[in-house]
Amino acid sequence: MDSHSLDGFFAPRSIAIVGASGTPGKIGAYPLHYQRHFGYSGSLVLVNPGRAEIDGLPCVPSLREAQTGIDLAILAVPAEQIEAAVLDAIQARVRNVVMFSAGFAEIGEAGAVLQRRVVSALQEAGIRLLGPNCLGYVNVARSVYATFSPAMMSAQARAGSVAMVSQSGAFGGYAYAMACRRDLGLSHWITTGNEADLHVADCIEWLAGDDRTDAILAYMEGCGDGDRFVRSLRAAQAACKPVVVIKVGATARGARAASSHSAALAGDDRVFDAVLKQYGAWRVGSIEELFNAGYALSTLPRPSNQTVGVLTVSGGVGALVTDDAARLGLAMPPMPQDAQDLVLDQVPFASAANPVDITAQVMHRPELLGSTARLMLDQGGYGSLLVFLANGVRTDAGWRLQQDLAVTLRREFPDRAVVFSALSTSERTQALDALGCASFEDPSSAMHAIAALSHFAAKRPLVAAAVRSAVSPAVLGALNELEAMQLLGRYGIATPPAALAATAMEAVEAARHLGFPVVMKVLSADIQHKTEIGGVILGVTDEAAVQAAFRLLCERWETHMPGRPFEGVVVASMISGGLECILGLHRDPQFGLVAVFGMGGIQAELLADVTVRRLPLCQAEAREMVSGLKSSIVFSGYRGSAPLDIAALEAAILALSRFGEEFSEALESVDLNPLVIRKAGQGVIALDAVVQWRR
Amino acid sequence: MDSHSLDGFFAPRSIAIVGASGTPGKIGAYPLHYQRHFGYSGSLVLVNPGRAEIDGLPCVPSLREAQTGIDLAILAVPAEQIEAAVLDAIQARVRNVVMFSAGFAEIGEAGAVLQRRVVSALQEAGIRLLGPNCLGYVNVARSVYATFSPAMMSAQARAGSVAMVSQSGAFGGYAYAMACRRDLGLSHWITTGNEADLHVADCIEWLAGDDRTDAILAYMEGCGDGDRFVRSLRAAQAACKPVVVIKVGATARGARAASSHSAALAGDDRVFDAVLKQYGAWRVGSIEELFNAGYALSTLPRPSNQTVGVLTVSGGVGALVTDDAARLGLAMPPMPQDAQDLVLDQVPFASAANPVDITAQVMHRPELLGSTARLMLDQGGYGSLLVFLANGVRTDAGWRLQQDLAVTLRREFPDRAVVFSALSTSERTQALDALGCASFEDPSSAMHAIAALSHFAAKRPLVAAAVRSAVSPAVLGALNELEAMQLLGRYGIATPPAALAATAMEAVEAARHLGFPVVMKVLSADIQHKTEIGGVILGVTDEAAVQAAFRLLCERWETHMPGRPFEGVVVASMISGGLECILGLHRDPQFGLVAVFGMGGIQAELLADVTVRRLPLCQAEAREMVSGLKSSIVFSGYRGSAPLDIAALEAAILALSRFGEEFSEALESVDLNPLVIRKAGQGVIALDAVVQWRR
Repeated sequence: MDSHSLDGFFAPRSIAIVGASGTPGKIGAYPLHYQRHFGYSGSLVLVNPGRAEIDGLPCVPSLREAQTGIDLAILAVPAEQIEAAVLDAIQARVRNVVMFSAGFAEIGEAGAVLQRRVVSALQEAGIRLLGPNCLGYVNVARSVYATFSPAMMSAQARAGSVAMVSQSGAFGGYAYAMACRRDLGLSHWITTGNEADLHVADCIEWLAGDDRTDAILAYMEGCGDGDRFVRSLRAAQAACKPVVVIKVGATARGARAASSHSAALAGDDRVFDAVLKQYGAWRVGSIEELFNAGYALSTLPRPSNQTVGVLTVSGGVGALVTDDAARLGLAMPPMPQDAQDLVLDQVPFASAANPVDITAQVMHRPELLGSTARLMLDQGGYGSLLVFLANGVRTDAGWRLQQDLAVTLRREFPDRAVVFSALSTSERTQALDALGCASFEDPSSAMHAIAALSHFAAKRPLVAAAVRSAVSPAVLGALNELEAMQLLGRYGIATPPAALAATAMEAVEAARHLGFPVVMKVLSADIQHKTEIGGVILGVTDEAAVQAAFRLLCERWETHMPGRPFEGVVVASMISGGLECILGLHRDPQFGLVAVFGMGGIQAELLADVTVRRLPLCQAEAREMVSGLKSSIVFSGYRGSAPLDIAALEAAILALSRFGEEFSEALESVDLNPLVIRKAGQGVIALDAVVQWRR
Repeated sequence: MDSHSLDGFFAPRSIAIVGASGTPGKIGAYPLHYQRHFGYSGSLVLVNPGRAEIDGLPCVPSLREAQTGIDLAILAVPAEQIEAAVLDAIQARVRNVVMFSAGFAEIGEAGAVLQRRVVSALQEAGIRLLGPNCLGYVNVARSVYATFSPAMMSAQARAGSVAMVSQSGAFGGYAYAMACRRDLGLSHWITTGNEADLHVADCIEWLAGDDRTDAILAYMEGCGDGDRFVRSLRAAQAACKPVVVIKVGATARGARAASSHSAALAGDDRVFDAVLKQYGAWRVGSIEELFNAGYALSTLPRPSNQTVGVLTVSGGVGALVTDDAARLGLAMPPMPQDAQDLVLDQVPFASAANPVDITAQVMHRPELLGSTARLMLDQGGYGSLLVFLANGVRTDAGWRLQQDLAVTLRREFPDRAVVFSALSTSERTQALDALGCASFEDPSSAMHAIAALSHFAAKRPLVAAAVRSAVSPAVLGALNELEAMQLLGRYGIATPPAALAATAMEAVEAARHLGFPVVMKVLSADIQHKTEIGGVILGVTDEAAVQAAFRLLCERWETHMPGRPFEGVVVASMISGGLECILGLHRDPQFGLVAVFGMGGIQAELLADVTVRRLPLCQAEAREMVSGLKSSIVFSGYRGSAPLDIAALEAAILALSRFGEEFSEALESVDLNPLVIRKAGQGVIALDAVVQWRR
């Protein structure tokens, strides 16, 4: 369904509250209280069979009694009354439904059955559903409070441009309260619960098109539909709206905790992480970081570039945030020499490169602050400037200085982000916010916020192609190694010259033709780990050895695979030298086919030095798969060894992506292991290939 | 010098302020103002040649005019007047000196010369020195304010049990202000500046013996004297006082920023990190974490064990902190099945393992909170309990519930740490602190604080041996490979059978004696990277091949090392199979000899999968060097391969440690590369060894 149809969902002109109540603490009391308290301007219909009126507002006994075509019905009734309420809603041609009730898929099979029944009735009637087992949503600007979260009783969020979407209601409630405390202005607050219809992804996609929303903060536990999620990230990317994601289950342990909590199954975290990177979202690890990123994105301009300058009155703190920047992968280029000389003219013992440390001198010569900051933005050209002022702004004089600095820098450098770190008061911090400068007590938090901001600074190119419609390979059966290699060869992946031999004499003939030495392997479509049964013999150097090797392979086959027909032996040219890597495709349950690239060897495997990208891949993504390895330096020549053929490697990754797109529906996995990377100009070659189709 | 002599330094009965001033903003005005304002009870002497009195207090023109034997002289005069002031101090038999002035080693060679002159005069007179170029110190309980930091003008720290030591003055001032804001009670606050005499380490050692101090927070940039630092950590460990360290320069870039800031040279961060681990300190990465750890350590009891339980009203936050715990290496064992059943009896759809998620049910049945928390501490036996209450404690009823819970748990489980995460007010948080429970807004911060606390929970065994007095190997010249292997063999490190051959015929003879195949290598005390000149030939299988290989090695030697005498060829048994590792010793400029162990192969090297420990090593430390590798699973048998000889590997690490201790003064480095680890029972063997002596 088109997400534009959600306009009526999240900005309804009419709302019905089914199960409305006037008794504080009741689930049906909250939305009624909120709509009246916050002044909802649309029409409100109360439904309660036991009451003629609530607090002076008239009540109808059932939705069937209400006007038809209501935009949103809030179902605040227990699970056992839901089916009746849904039938009424369908009858009354309600357009959208929020369902608070627990007792569905999250409690096990019985609840899941009920949920499926309810959802299919709603879908048939074309009614969209948020929940069940959710806290509902809030549209701050329009004063729609379709929620029973008590969080809005104690505080009201300021209207602003940040949208929050949370799968978990409890998390969402906590985040709402924190947003109030931190004065983060919200456009929308949405919880999705069991996600029987609307997912976090659908909300992101709709928010990407919402005029009031400039940035989106999302909390996720799982991601049931990878394609939907990717589509939502692309929509946000196209609308230049930053998406910041916190997803639990980053560790196997956390994933277990998440899946015992909700009906969602946390997917493979590494793939999820790769998808976020690939489609431009920013991932954070804690609530604190989520809010800091939201605060920075809603306060600061998008910087014109990704470089960072640090201006400090403490060399120690300068070094501390330099460590942070290095860990976060932020570039902190030094100032041009001329500019450094200007700093040193003013403060002879300053550090003038970057960080620029103007030392305690600033206490005696406060004008140094402004002149140095402007020099750094002007001559250093930094996209973001972190200014650490320690205690210096607690006096009135210090505050005036900081305020003047903020005004001047914003006026002269409107396309740069200026972030302060200092001990200040909340009033003064808010005054800086209003000027378009952020302020953090902890300098490391300031650098983390700059990292989030810089991530969205340079507009990343959109990924071009969508997944092609699949060629259904109905004719394809299981492929043996030789067939797999031939198929891949047609897509441009090189493999060694090879032939199939059914007898020892054929093997000798093949080896003679290929030239010695050769490699001999048993052929099978079934055996994945040939090496484990001794089914591969390397370095066979003469004809007698070929005959002996053939006999040995026959014997091993009979020992390990009794009763299975022996299909022959592959004789292949022996390739030596080069760097052994692993390249493959793998079907992720949520995101479909992903490409995986990494170093060979068990240590590298254990250390998990791999890159992952969702198909389809463009040239730039193939390049990132190579350069993104921690040990990528080995490709460009390490310790005197020659540079390797990176161009051919990238081409092979793209070729495998094309192969995957072609067979996207049919393919389960591909393993090229090892893929040997040779010297520049000599190409790459897959020594073994396993292609598995879906069952 | 014995650190007990610092009692008079940090708790002086008499203080002289040289350069005392009554003009606000002057460096000599701050300590005078503070001593009077905060009520220093000892005797105070003001020194200023230009004034007869300041604010009603008499002034003497010079220290020579004052009483002799003053405990502490604060020298608040510019660098050019320091030498005269120091001479006066010596004359007046002052016992200790704080020197604020800048203009010494931090400005370059001229300043360094002046600093050395001043220090050696003071040392000769037996006077201890803090500074120069420092902000001085504060003893909160005794109201000693030997500082010119303006931080104490705006706020006064509460007297408490946490000591802060900072090399950087600006960092120290900021941290002092943050401690006031966060109500962290301080015993001492010390900045060490150029560390011409007293280092951060000396302060830690003295604080370890100070009755008022229970925990120590330290900021460091470098560590000029590794032995002193290790001694201070051991002293703190012996006194059971946690030391939390923030050290900049964790990245190469941060280290550059730090060394341009101060006279200290940031050492190899990996070694520093290993030393902290080895001697029981806890390292944090940001000011925020430093304060959170200090807060937890000063508020909570040391938990009886290192396990963590999580009680939550949000499954999402439960999963989030489970991720944090996994990343921090904290154990979160599940509840016993009986206890889980009890939880499920109460809340059928709860998660009952760990985290225990009692869901929003707690809103209706608040008694669930107390009963579940007690069950978790009682039956789950957790050392620390994290209780996430979201917004639940903002109402008065919620607050009474939380308060009762805190009181009950502290009374019934006094040896456990109870940490809340909830949105609350600062008054309520302080009330919880007073009860001995900590509270954090951000649940991830709560888990980080628990990690710091748990680190100090289980008392770690003290490292037994000190470095032995060195055997000076005056007779030792450069060792060639064969000599190095023989020497190491005497310490218990196995090497392959080998012989030296000066001629091709001798080589054939040796190979015949050893048995084929053999390895042949050029012999030299100079060449480290034999492989790079092609000086190693593997798998020589018969006599003719030995002769050919000998000739080839001669040729290569002459090509690459023209004019250098050819010393012969080592012929050694060829060892195949096993896992190739690297083991060595390396002299760190600050901590002396450290052992380094890691995987072989360039990928593993690039991925920096190594463990480091300072010598001497005990059995447990040798074991940690093996188990601490990210890829350590390969030793216990991976993918069906046989388990390797871990016992022999640990023995080899200990043997190398003994070798290092024996030659500690003479040794520069040892490289066993590769060290081959064979199957369990078959031992380990060093295939190549390079020993380098100090020049």
